[in-house]
Amino acid sequence: MGQTMMSDHNISDIGLHASGKDRVDWARNNMPILGAIKERLAVEQPFKGHKIGICLHVEAKSGVWIETLMAGGARIAITGSPGSTQDDTAAWLVKELDVEVFAWRSETFDEHMDNARRVLATEPTIIADNGGDLHFLLGDDDAYKGLRDSIIGATEETTTGANRLREELPAFDFPTIIINDTMAKRIVENRYGVGISVVDGIMRTTNIMLGGKTVVVVGYGYCGQGVAQRLRGLGAHVTVVDTEPLAQLEAHFEGFTTGLLKDALPGADIVITVTGRDSAIQKEHFELMKDGVVLCNAGQNSAEIDIESLREMAATQRTLRPDIEQLTLDSGRKFFLLAQGNLINLAGGDGNPIEVMDLGLALQTLSLECIALGAGTLSNGPQTVPHDIEQATLRAALQEWVK
Amino acid sequence: MGQTMMSDHNISDIGLHASGKDRVDWARNNMPILGAIKERLAVEQPFKGHKIGICLHVEAKSGVWIETLMAGGARIAITGSPGSTQDDTAAWLVKELDVEVFAWRSETFDEHMDNARRVLATEPTIIADNGGDLHFLLGDDDAYKGLRDSIIGATEETTTGANRLREELPAFDFPTIIINDTMAKRIVENRYGVGISVVDGIMRTTNIMLGGKTVVVVGYGYCGQGVAQRLRGLGAHVTVVDTEPLAQLEAHFEGFTTGLLKDALPGADIVITVTGRDSAIQKEHFELMKDGVVLCNAGQNSAEIDIESLREMAATQRTLRPDIEQLTLDSGRKFFLLAQGNLINLAGGDGNPIEVMDLGLALQTLSLECIALGAGTLSNGPQTVPHDIEQATLRAALQEWVK
Amino acid sequence: MGQTMMSDHNISDIGLHASGKDRVDWARNNMPILGAIKERLAVEQPFKGHKIGICLHVEAKSGVWIETLMAGGARIAITGSPGSTQDDTAAWLVKELDVEVFAWRSETFDEHMDNARRVLATEPTIIADNGGDLHFLLGDDDAYKGLRDSIIGATEETTTGANRLREELPAFDFPTIIINDTMAKRIVENRYGVGISVVDGIMRTTNIMLGGKTVVVVGYGYCGQGVAQRLRGLGAHVTVVDTEPLAQLEAHFEGFTTGLLKDALPGADIVITVTGRDSAIQKEHFELMKDGVVLCNAGQNSAEIDIESLREMAATQRTLRPDIEQLTLDSGRKFFLLAQGNLINLAGGDGNPIEVMDLGLALQTLSLECIALGAGTLSNGPQTVPHDIEQATLRAALQEWVK
Amino acid sequence: MGQTMMSDHNISDIGLHASGKDRVDWARNNMPILGAIKERLAVEQPFKGHKIGICLHVEAKSGVWIETLMAGGARIAITGSPGSTQDDTAAWLVKELDVEVFAWRSETFDEHMDNARRVLATEPTIIADNGGDLHFLLGDDDAYKGLRDSIIGATEETTTGANRLREELPAFDFPTIIINDTMAKRIVENRYGVGISVVDGIMRTTNIMLGGKTVVVVGYGYCGQGVAQRLRGLGAHVTVVDTEPLAQLEAHFEGFTTGLLKDALPGADIVITVTGRDSAIQKEHFELMKDGVVLCNAGQNSAEIDIESLREMAATQRTLRPDIEQLTLDSGRKFFLLAQGNLINLAGGDGNPIEVMDLGLALQTLSLECIALGAGTLSNGPQTVPHDIEQATLRAALQEWVK
Repeated sequence: MGQTMMSDHNISDIGLHASGKDRVDWARNNMPILGAIKERLAVEQPFKGHKIGICLHVEAKSGVWIETLMAGGARIAITGSPGSTQDDTAAWLVKELDVEVFAWRSETFDEHMDNARRVLATEPTIIADNGGDLHFLLGDDDAYKGLRDSIIGATEETTTGANRLREELPAFDFPTIIINDTMAKRIVENRYGVGISVVDGIMRTTNIMLGGKTVVVVGYGYCGQGVAQRLRGLGAHVTVVDTEPLAQLEAHFEGFTTGLLKDALPGADIVITVTGRDSAIQKEHFELMKDGVVLCNAGQNSAEIDIESLREMAATQRTLRPDIEQLTLDSGRKFFLLAQGNLINLAGGDGNPIEVMDLGLALQTLSLECIALGAGTLSNGPQTVPHDIEQATLRAALQEWVK
Repeated sequence: MGQTMMSDHNISDIGLHASGKDRVDWARNNMPILGAIKERLAVEQPFKGHKIGICLHVEAKSGVWIETLMAGGARIAITGSPGSTQDDTAAWLVKELDVEVFAWRSETFDEHMDNARRVLATEPTIIADNGGDLHFLLGDDDAYKGLRDSIIGATEETTTGANRLREELPAFDFPTIIINDTMAKRIVENRYGVGISVVDGIMRTTNIMLGGKTVVVVGYGYCGQGVAQRLRGLGAHVTVVDTEPLAQLEAHFEGFTTGLLKDALPGADIVITVTGRDSAIQKEHFELMKDGVVLCNAGQNSAEIDIESLREMAATQRTLRPDIEQLTLDSGRKFFLLAQGNLINLAGGDGNPIEVMDLGLALQTLSLECIALGAGTLSNGPQTVPHDIEQATLRAALQEWVK
Repeated sequence: MGQTMMSDHNISDIGLHASGKDRVDWARNNMPILGAIKERLAVEQPFKGHKIGICLHVEAKSGVWIETLMAGGARIAITGSPGSTQDDTAAWLVKELDVEVFAWRSETFDEHMDNARRVLATEPTIIADNGGDLHFLLGDDDAYKGLRDSIIGATEETTTGANRLREELPAFDFPTIIINDTMAKRIVENRYGVGISVVDGIMRTTNIMLGGKTVVVVGYGYCGQGVAQRLRGLGAHVTVVDTEPLAQLEAHFEGFTTGLLKDALPGADIVITVTGRDSAIQKEHFELMKDGVVLCNAGQNSAEIDIESLREMAATQRTLRPDIEQLTLDSGRKFFLLAQGNLINLAGGDGNPIEVMDLGLALQTLSLECIALGAGTLSNGPQTVPHDIEQATLRAALQEWVK
Repeated sequence: MGQTMMSDHNISDIGLHASGKDRVDWARNNMPILGAIKERLAVEQPFKGHKIGICLHVEAKSGVWIETLMAGGARIAITGSPGSTQDDTAAWLVKELDVEVFAWRSETFDEHMDNARRVLATEPTIIADNGGDLHFLLGDDDAYKGLRDSIIGATEETTTGANRLREELPAFDFPTIIINDTMAKRIVENRYGVGISVVDGIMRTTNIMLGGKTVVVVGYGYCGQGVAQRLRGLGAHVTVVDTEPLAQLEAHFEGFTTGLLKDALPGADIVITVTGRDSAIQKEHFELMKDGVVLCNAGQNSAEIDIESLREMAATQRTLRPDIEQLTLDSGRKFFLLAQGNLINLAGGDGNPIEVMDLGLALQTLSLECIALGAGTLSNGPQTVPHDIEQATLRAALQEWVK
């Protein structure tokens, strides 16, 4: 392990801070909503006296967010996720903002959980969680009983984390606001953000021509709508498959070819899953596909395509370009799997566009402010973002983006 | 009044039946969902022994629907709406199907209400209402007490009628299924049907070039989305105005110019209201518009544009083409009002495309069947279309349209 | 024949002038290019001393054009085409502008040619022809020898007329400027004007839902591009067929399905010809089409679909709506032919949008001015519009339309 | 200099060949036109006895092309361009195909010209040039007199090279076919290929949200049309600026905002030049732009934006991300320049999509075959691709892409 060790942080290399500054500066230029909120928070100091314990990707957009919270009086401790930490951004956070950062890119899952424990050890009064890891630790260990009592509230970024909170974890005696439960995120991030970042991810991974290609988009929820629209916007011939009759009719009148998966697959040059459920593409479907088909996933997780079955079918496997894996059957038929079935916009690109995160992190910030100022007025447990917070965020977005 | 008078109908001219047959034949060719339902109903006879009392536009698409209900064993009495009756279709219904029709094109509102009373006088056991007129009469007069008891259920086509039922009329001891309360209608009819019929209505009323025109669409609900999309699809430069922040952001990322109404109006060549509320365009707004602006409405009713104020402002008024009224201020500035502010797709065109009515009337048919077969299992009062009825209709639409 | 007969005009009914005024007033509101030209011509008087003999549809847009020419000092004699004359516009031209009009709606072809002779009898010094009829008469009869010598130049609106001039008619000792030979007309009128007026014509003729329909567009020249784009813009599923490899590839990358005609036809709900050649759809093609297919033509003339073969195949024929003809085979398979194969935008609608004619007639006006002022500097015979005239017209269009 | 030196090649590191094989394998999967041509050439051996001397980017797509030529009997010597050589592809060409390669990524311009001389030293009988460097050397030095006589013909890929041949270089006694002079390349590569690769390049360079952004596209030729269409397809608000009236009108009716550059710039979030001429954006224009504007170029060369003036205006300069340079005025106003004004699709991405190069290199291949088989039937000097070669390439593209 090559990372620097000090009392209040654990990162890879403090010397990388200058490069981190460049990254954060670019991101900040495209995050005007947080910028406007920061000015107000600097005056009002809603987080004064609070330590916020964060679990979120340690990268440039999060860096701008942390600045914003600190401008409002917060002290911050943060851990990231295995594989997504930008070590230079981490260095900048430590060096410039004196944030307690516990994260490095090559960390294992066990190291990540240790880092999460170190965040809790800083005794935060508010939690900003991602995927429920901090909540899990808090609920799992009696050692955190005192901390549980002193925490006044939390946020959770993801639907996955929300599901853990609602279905698996013990009840907590404080409110947890679920950021993903808003139409604001569904429309702005899922439909428009994901739609664009998926075409970006495919293009930079493959350098192939999307115009004129027959692409089967499996799933026509908000993400699927966005992916289908943006592919069409580049000249692709899009077929939409969805098992819900209304979704299929909507796609039909929108101008997309629609039909059953089994009828659509034989003509596909590219197949993209955006269904939100496991094994949307199964063994029987691979058998319908033509030689040279490109497979990728933009849905909830890598299980939307049953990759294990595909690997079992394959006689040989090769990696051709980063994130392009060629799987060849005995018959010579080839499949090209992108990013091992991981989300193509994250694995093959830079994730959602900066502005989309500006909105999402503004929702986070105002939700955290709501907790800092009025946690007592909220019921305990997981709950949706208060309507006025969502509206205020949307108005701020309009103010900055549309003018 | 030139209409024929007989014991069981009251129409304009029975001699027009051949032309009515042509109209209905064309409509039937484009209504395959009803066609498929008709085959099944002819076998199952769910309406056997029932008289259905209908209030709906007496025109060709309704003619195909009436055929369908009669194939299922129903007897029919119908009245229409002032101004929308096709006298030849009415003649065909009487001559060919022996329907009790009480409607003619030139009828006044009072005559219409008399005709509605004649429908009730035929002692229907099921009601299919449009705008709540039959329900209003039923609830208004003690003379209908016995009829109220013998009616087993009803449908209501419109939101306006639903609002009357929910807010103004007395409670009835039978279920009334509200057809408009379905996502199927909102997506298929409001977004895709209205979007297309509005551009149709504007083009045939004016013969102007929509490509390149700056059009301000006021309102971005389902109808507004459809209107904005279809105008863009013809090359118009569309600005969307909506007071809801999320609707405005959605339009912004969809690629439309957005902003405040007062900022959008000065550049508008055409202004279209689709807001669902009165006086979306008021006196202060007319003052912002440029010389020669075209005004039209595609929303709920003619009050979305405050036409009275406009007429008061105008020094002179002229009708240039059918449904184009020129209002000129003292200053010489001209406004062109289409269809007197009535819904441009109905007033200036043929209303929604035939296929869209095929879906809507299929929803009607299956809802009526639900009442005929199982009214007892439904609660009383206004209620949404049962989920399985909506799904069955959508699946039938897919079966016929997409294949 | 009910038309009025006077020494200097021959029209249907002078009493219709008020209605003609309304029509022309509406058109004028949407023809700002001619409006701007008119102001200049009123000062400069380029047509002073000239009589312009015109053959063009006698309808409202032409009325605005005639005003423009007269403002520039011209006297006018005009004949129209059988079937396209607006009798009220004709009355207004006679009553208000004292134009020598020889045209009525119900005139036969022979009457039309007589009317054209009456235009020539007024001894025009400049000719504005449409389809080459005036040129044909001038070249056909020695009686016009003196007139041929006194005419200083001409314009011809159409490609059909240009072909007659280049291939069939004798050479004339004056220049004839061919309006249709410009990129301005190809882009503005053929691609954007025709594209929009064709969807307008289909919608008002049929009231069917274009969204979701499978439409085969045969021909991907400028008109075909426009038709395909605008249909897609309304949500139709468009397949483009073109025998030129580059046109097919262009359509493919533009996002359209492409392929061979025989492969595309079986799936078509609607087939539209825009090829510019005869018999693009032949007997063998009808046999591939499905029951209920709608056929229409937007190309050069009604011969693009081999209607005679279709009529021979049909066992029965019926007219369902104006311009919808149902042809049924012995097998029961039905074809719906729109507007008897005539151009659907003209036969089923109002022709090209007013603004598009504003540009075309501005090109006409400046070409006529070019002849009036400098015929001597032009070579004799058919020729393209001078580059500076085309550029001046385009700049005027930008000035008025874009601002 | 770390490159290996052997008698017949000069590359960076032969050990990289395995990675080069992966790259070429992926490219080959997406180049079916060359694949089909290769099969035929392997039988017909048109290049038997010929050495082809090539100057072209030494990267994977070129690798597939070289395979194709060699299958047809050719021997190959190649040099690349400074900065674009993929060293692993070069290694694979040497190791696997025994090609005489003289190129490495870090070569200087002088080294490049030396490498070009080494290609000529292998005594090619046919030349395939890129930018005219090989022609320049041939014409510049009497030492090549004998070689000039033995060369039977050449191709030139670029317009820049074509211009050198037509305007600067001496006449040669053999034909040079100019690949770029075809509508096939203009439509497929310029409009559809460049349009897509530009949005790809911007997205991967910046990670910003193109949806909702106001983008000014300067120039509406084939490339500009493609860029504008694809940006709109992603939800951007596109303003098109072109000084040609017809181009502006076309953009207007296509649905784009248009206007003068000076009016469009103040609202721009992003400015993209695609004009094909120098200094389209000058000092006076920078002054009109707003704080934070992003500048990039997709036109012919880096001179379309007058970067020198911008640098002079700037008080400070910083590089924020690779290919994002921040230039700040004394006033604090910031400009973000992408890729130093170099073509954003090449500098920030992978250049044109693989399939687009498949078409372009197929044109190359058939043109070279035309020379090998029938140079004597062609006139000497620069000339367009023979019509039948272009048509054959287009038909092959349809065969492989559309089916």
